[in-house]
Amino acid sequence: MTTLARRPGPTVRARVTEHTPEGSRGRPDKLATEEPLEIRATAPGVPPHRIWVTMRTPGNDFDLAAGFCVHEGMTPRAGIDRVAYCTDTDLAPEQEFNVVTVTLADATGLAAGSRTRHEAQSLGSSACGVCGKDSVEAVLDVPHGPVRQHADPDPALVRELPSLLREQQSLFGRTGGVHGAGLADADGRMLVVREDVGRHNAVDKVTGARVLAGESPAAPYLVVSGRAGFELVQKAVTAGVGCMVAVGAPSSLAVSLAEEAGLSLFGFTGPDRCVQYS
Amino acid sequence: MTTLARRPGPTVRARVTEHTPEGSRGRPDKLATEEPLEIRATAPGVPPHRIWVTMRTPGNDFDLAAGFCVHEGMTPRAGIDRVAYCTDTDLAPEQEFNVVTVTLADATGLAAGSRTRHEAQSLGSSACGVCGKDSVEAVLDVPHGPVRQHADPDPALVRELPSLLREQQSLFGRTGGVHGAGLADADGRMLVVREDVGRHNAVDKVTGARVLAGESPAAPYLVVSGRAGFELVQKAVTAGVGCMVAVGAPSSLAVSLAEEAGLSLFGFTGPDRCVQYS
Repeated sequence: MTTLARRPGPTVRARVTEHTPEGSRGRPDKLATEEPLEIRATAPGVPPHRIWVTMRTPGNDFDLAAGFCVHEGMTPRAGIDRVAYCTDTDLAPEQEFNVVTVTLADATGLAAGSRTRHEAQSLGSSACGVCGKDSVEAVLDVPHGPVRQHADPDPALVRELPSLLREQQSLFGRTGGVHGAGLADADGRMLVVREDVGRHNAVDKVTGARVLAGESPAAPYLVVSGRAGFELVQKAVTAGVGCMVAVGAPSSLAVSLAEEAGLSLFGFTGPDRCVQYS
Repeated sequence: MTTLARRPGPTVRARVTEHTPEGSRGRPDKLATEEPLEIRATAPGVPPHRIWVTMRTPGNDFDLAAGFCVHEGMTPRAGIDRVAYCTDTDLAPEQEFNVVTVTLADATGLAAGSRTRHEAQSLGSSACGVCGKDSVEAVLDVPHGPVRQHADPDPALVRELPSLLREQQSLFGRTGGVHGAGLADADGRMLVVREDVGRHNAVDKVTGARVLAGESPAAPYLVVSGRAGFELVQKAVTAGVGCMVAVGAPSSLAVSLAEEAGLSLFGFTGPDRCVQYS
């Protein structure tokens, strides 16, 4: 199948049929765009190579790629020099904006990246047994960022954060079909908000946006519109945020990691209540 | 970090603090368990090798592994001989129930599996350029099952399906933190319902449950509790279902694939309305 447009926007128009007990009617609609993005990494002395492919909503692609690298522990000492769309001549024209290359300032991070859980998801060439132990443990091996001092979270502020995030989710307002993530300061001011069909991507985008702006992603609060699974808490820990606030439920492993890493974790968060898990 | 128990159940107990405008109080809670599962495949003449690692809710692990293989196009001609937990002696004891091996009846499917999108997510050894084209196209290459004849979906029945699914989601009732998927016949009777912290896993589990019971996964309706992204539609198409009913929104690529494959796709489905996208 082919992609929808040469340079896809965050939404596409569609014609739909709405069925109600009263009958059916056609109407125009907007859908959140979903397209594959390949992320490549390179560093001085190391040619560009693929590190991940994700289905994402186009827009803020450089934030997504940069944030992904940060969360994978690929920027331990130095930062990111450059992020750009790939201009390989052998790339199909419609894929030109679906491949992004991140240039790291030094190569130490590339090795860190290859030690992470994504190694576990490659189609195996290893023999049975060794690979199992390796891959399952690789999944659970979280590259901790330096522990940062954050003030204790304020439950009254926590309860407000999802509404403050929602106010800035313009794509959700148009499509109803994307997740949102935002970083907030200690007073609940949103520092950056990003949206994506993938909830992991939305978190990658907020971290990447901060890093590419020369700011730290280690904000007091990370707010997410969905549930808090292990991989999202993993990203929050690696970015060094103080408190993660989810609208939905956390999983067992998410709570376990949050406790181990000293991250405050809230779930089922709304104006009337929030539940603190760590 | 270590996992939570030798043989983890679908929920774990936790002690939480609930904050409301009236104050804070501690109380017991239940969390949906999340643990890594490594899936391995083998066939006559081919030693077991890793094909995927996913974070999942323990329970129905064999369904999950079998369904994953079906959705990857790994059972084109023959079926699945056997699914079992791995008993390698070098596996850490706490990981014993986190590694499952699927034995395929013949090896042709293994090749099909290695052509799929998961190849795209391996850490790259390919050179830049070639790999980009390959990986992005691999993501979009959906192994179509044989096209099956299904009756046109009934919008009045479609609107009821999420409630019928919800009635059988026991884990959601206890934790509020898992996705559900169910296959239904033309009269809306639920043939099988499964739950998981991962919405893709829930769909793998319903397909696998049917296949391991000797039944076809190509039911008239697949109902999912969340949104309809590309990868979920991809699974529905490969399983050969007639109509996919989502509680949430579909993405652009999900609609595009559904149209191409002749799958009816409904989103924003509830008692009062549903929206038909293809």
